[in-house]
Amino acid sequence: MISPYDTDMARNGANHVALSPLSFLRKSAQVYPALPAIRYGDRVISWAQTYARCRRFASALVAAGIGKNDTVAVMAPNIPAMVEAHFAVAMAGAVLNTLNIRLDAEAIAFQLAHGDARAVLVDREFIPVLRAALVGMPRPPLVIDIADPSYQTADRLGAIEYEDFLASGDPDFAWDLPGDEWNALALNYTSGTTGNPKGVVFHHRGGYLNAVNNIVSAGMAWHPVHLHVVPLFHCNGWCFVWSVAALSGTNVCLRRVDPAAIFAAITHHGVTHMGGAPIVYNMLIHAPEAASFVPPGRVVGVTGGASPPAATIEGAQRLGIHIQHIYGLTETYGPAGWCAPQGDWQQLDLFAYAKMTARQGVATVLQEDMTVRDPETLLPVPHDGETLGEIMFRGNAVMKGYLKNSPATNDAFAGGWFRSGDLAVVDADGYVRILDRSKDIIISGGENISSLEVEDVLCRHASVFAVAVVACADEKWGEVPCAFVETKPGCTVNADELRQFGRAHLAGFKLPKKYVFGPIPRTSTGKVQKFKLRAIAGQLD
Amino acid sequence: MISPYDTDMARNGANHVALSPLSFLRKSAQVYPALPAIRYGDRVISWAQTYARCRRFASALVAAGIGKNDTVAVMAPNIPAMVEAHFAVAMAGAVLNTLNIRLDAEAIAFQLAHGDARAVLVDREFIPVLRAALVGMPRPPLVIDIADPSYQTADRLGAIEYEDFLASGDPDFAWDLPGDEWNALALNYTSGTTGNPKGVVFHHRGGYLNAVNNIVSAGMAWHPVHLHVVPLFHCNGWCFVWSVAALSGTNVCLRRVDPAAIFAAITHHGVTHMGGAPIVYNMLIHAPEAASFVPPGRVVGVTGGASPPAATIEGAQRLGIHIQHIYGLTETYGPAGWCAPQGDWQQLDLFAYAKMTARQGVATVLQEDMTVRDPETLLPVPHDGETLGEIMFRGNAVMKGYLKNSPATNDAFAGGWFRSGDLAVVDADGYVRILDRSKDIIISGGENISSLEVEDVLCRHASVFAVAVVACADEKWGEVPCAFVETKPGCTVNADELRQFGRAHLAGFKLPKKYVFGPIPRTSTGKVQKFKLRAIAGQLD
Repeated sequence: MISPYDTDMARNGANHVALSPLSFLRKSAQVYPALPAIRYGDRVISWAQTYARCRRFASALVAAGIGKNDTVAVMAPNIPAMVEAHFAVAMAGAVLNTLNIRLDAEAIAFQLAHGDARAVLVDREFIPVLRAALVGMPRPPLVIDIADPSYQTADRLGAIEYEDFLASGDPDFAWDLPGDEWNALALNYTSGTTGNPKGVVFHHRGGYLNAVNNIVSAGMAWHPVHLHVVPLFHCNGWCFVWSVAALSGTNVCLRRVDPAAIFAAITHHGVTHMGGAPIVYNMLIHAPEAASFVPPGRVVGVTGGASPPAATIEGAQRLGIHIQHIYGLTETYGPAGWCAPQGDWQQLDLFAYAKMTARQGVATVLQEDMTVRDPETLLPVPHDGETLGEIMFRGNAVMKGYLKNSPATNDAFAGGWFRSGDLAVVDADGYVRILDRSKDIIISGGENISSLEVEDVLCRHASVFAVAVVACADEKWGEVPCAFVETKPGCTVNADELRQFGRAHLAGFKLPKKYVFGPIPRTSTGKVQKFKLRAIAGQLD
Repeated sequence: MISPYDTDMARNGANHVALSPLSFLRKSAQVYPALPAIRYGDRVISWAQTYARCRRFASALVAAGIGKNDTVAVMAPNIPAMVEAHFAVAMAGAVLNTLNIRLDAEAIAFQLAHGDARAVLVDREFIPVLRAALVGMPRPPLVIDIADPSYQTADRLGAIEYEDFLASGDPDFAWDLPGDEWNALALNYTSGTTGNPKGVVFHHRGGYLNAVNNIVSAGMAWHPVHLHVVPLFHCNGWCFVWSVAALSGTNVCLRRVDPAAIFAAITHHGVTHMGGAPIVYNMLIHAPEAASFVPPGRVVGVTGGASPPAATIEGAQRLGIHIQHIYGLTETYGPAGWCAPQGDWQQLDLFAYAKMTARQGVATVLQEDMTVRDPETLLPVPHDGETLGEIMFRGNAVMKGYLKNSPATNDAFAGGWFRSGDLAVVDADGYVRILDRSKDIIISGGENISSLEVEDVLCRHASVFAVAVVACADEKWGEVPCAFVETKPGCTVNADELRQFGRAHLAGFKLPKKYVFGPIPRTSTGKVQKFKLRAIAGQLD
């Protein structure tokens, strides 16, 4: 017998609406039409204007024959068109594929072909790369140039310029929410440190919920002023672009991650929130402009991609930036775990506090679960701070799957958990602590060495700016650690000094056997490219 | 052809989890186990304890044969067991039916029978009413007495006492999230000013989303201390009980709405948020304790059920309470609209500010839409502040339907909108302003008179505490307004004075023809019972 609670109680148009971040844009335009949605240098675009521009953009895409499940790619830095694309493409029913602007033509060509992009917007700075990527493409996409005045060039590639494309559209375009909140919203390729990148598909439900999740976890109040330092091509700026729309806040755009520009934006626009890898905050701390910078207010500085060292937390605090550590992957829409602060941490000294805060922590409020499990048995590891397992997620901000890659999708979801590939322990307080990516663990004489632990120690040396440690083949031990070291401006340090410093804090077998001094290669999002370091280490003798 | 975006991209256990407020309890117990979940006088129950108690409670219900879609009723004030029931009943898969403690035996009997309650928890204060309600019931529910020590009586009714029931349960009970987020979560009967009340069914999805909605709209930061003044039997305390769980905050319980107790709770527990009808704040403002009350911090005072008058906004401010006006119905899980503040309102004088704030406003962030439409054509009314229409909602915090009442459900959802029954206009700024409940409009000589407008004016008289205006039959005009007036303590006023005062602010035909002085009958949630006033007015000569 069907229960009365399920009789004539079906979803209908009044009581069930697809969860989609598009709702946030419509509402901000309705309730706070005159407030600034986007600031870019001297340019201000209100919420009413942004909504009208996005409707034009969406209708022009539809007029170009683009609709549901078509891919629209964008290759641009964090400029206004990039923010607009985060709504307009989905308003046309299409899927936004943001391209990493640091990639070469070959990688871009792969993504455009794999994603079957029907259109691509390109900032003129990246026309040369895109031009090369399109050579020989059997079904080239419609190209739309974005002529951002702050990048001067006579180069043109597209059939039409972005503002002309918008002008051709309808500011009153009657768009619809997706018919199903499970519909694809965005396509984000993983950085692919090895092999071809995987195309992570976001759905509307996840985009909506993770946008709200950011608000709740980061404690964002109404009308936040969010400085987009994290590239919007990286997990859609960790979904903050949609969080800002929910709270009728301001997206502060930034063409380049440059300390002077960041300090200026904080001062002039009253930035309340920003995001970035720890290296970004380090860069600010050590910038010449830092000395004369007077924080106009408190900025919440969300950080992820690596653990924030004590010096970063402290240095940022001096700049008025309160560091909040989050953890996640492209597959989890960015932030999915966070190091939820506990009241009694305030009594700790800086290093003890940093040690607590450096952990990956717990699942965010709207992410269902983040646990560490044995990858074979799927049993959770004990909370002993020692037993290694794999971080696994379950929740509504977990990708729909990998595009055209069922084997990888099935592997990632095997056993009913999303497997992150990150190896971690769980401390007694239930907080997850990453030891390493599984491929970054160094196995020396049968002992596991966490490259992160070694990096953490060497980082504390007064002359060291950043350290990356990788495995290096060794006849006797199998593998030994090799350290790549960047020094602070005006500082020097040598291998002997570091060896001596490390010996005070590390077991002997964990000490790097080799040291290389110089710049460390990173991805555009600040992640160290360890595969490149391993290649270098392999050629050292 | 199926798009690659929909190929091998199905929902699975890792990327799709039922939205349910139960997740918030589990997470608070995991991340902030030692923080206080419930405070009640000197009693403190931590999140770990609350979770363990709820698991005991749920497992004991299951052991009693109660499961999915079974109704569990509770008749209790805002005491700890009431908070726990908001999680434990759903953890057993069952549906929570909170009973209005002011109702008589007949009304309670109707709800228990209509909802087919399998169990009922009863605070001992309400045993006499429940006992009478159960007389002659063919399938009487399992009765569980709640022996709250703060209410002394030797009376017993139930087969078991609440704490013994919990003791019989399993603190490690392996409960499950609902198999479908559309499953019933709660059953809330409307106050039913006429005829039998309707049983509004909430689903888990709506409870989850409206809990988050409260956080976003009310700007709740981590660890709020929420004073439950709004009865938890009223739309589940406007869903704030679940919002508090999401942010690992504290539920401050209160047996009675009493100014001294409220001031004490604010002072001793550091209350940050509370809710209540405007009359509650009025009561605080005029309480003898107000004179010596020193606000320890800022309290956000959410108000709804009626528009807050200027004097209430100002008086509350003096008590450190910042009034936030929300609007909604049981069918919309409580708060669904809010009078979103605009920056330039700050420059207005108090009365102009109050006039802005008294409006019902706009849809909350996670509620999709709140519009005013012609009930026949469903066309939106122009934003002219004059054209009357019906407020309609669409969104994910709209009820599943009315229990065992398909005709009423179909009527409520006819045309794809939930019809509120409230008549309103839309001002030029897009804000909704209620003129009246359709049945409260007074039609005098063919002219519509908003009872709210007349009440607003009379309320400004220095001696007036509260006013309610209803229609009274009149031979000449059809209907004329009749005013019921409560004066402030120690103040007097007569009909002539009010007539003269009203004449300065109202058109002549809107002036009440009759005045009645004395207490105004209200529901337990502070809503004026106009049907009772109409009955009295009908007997005046």
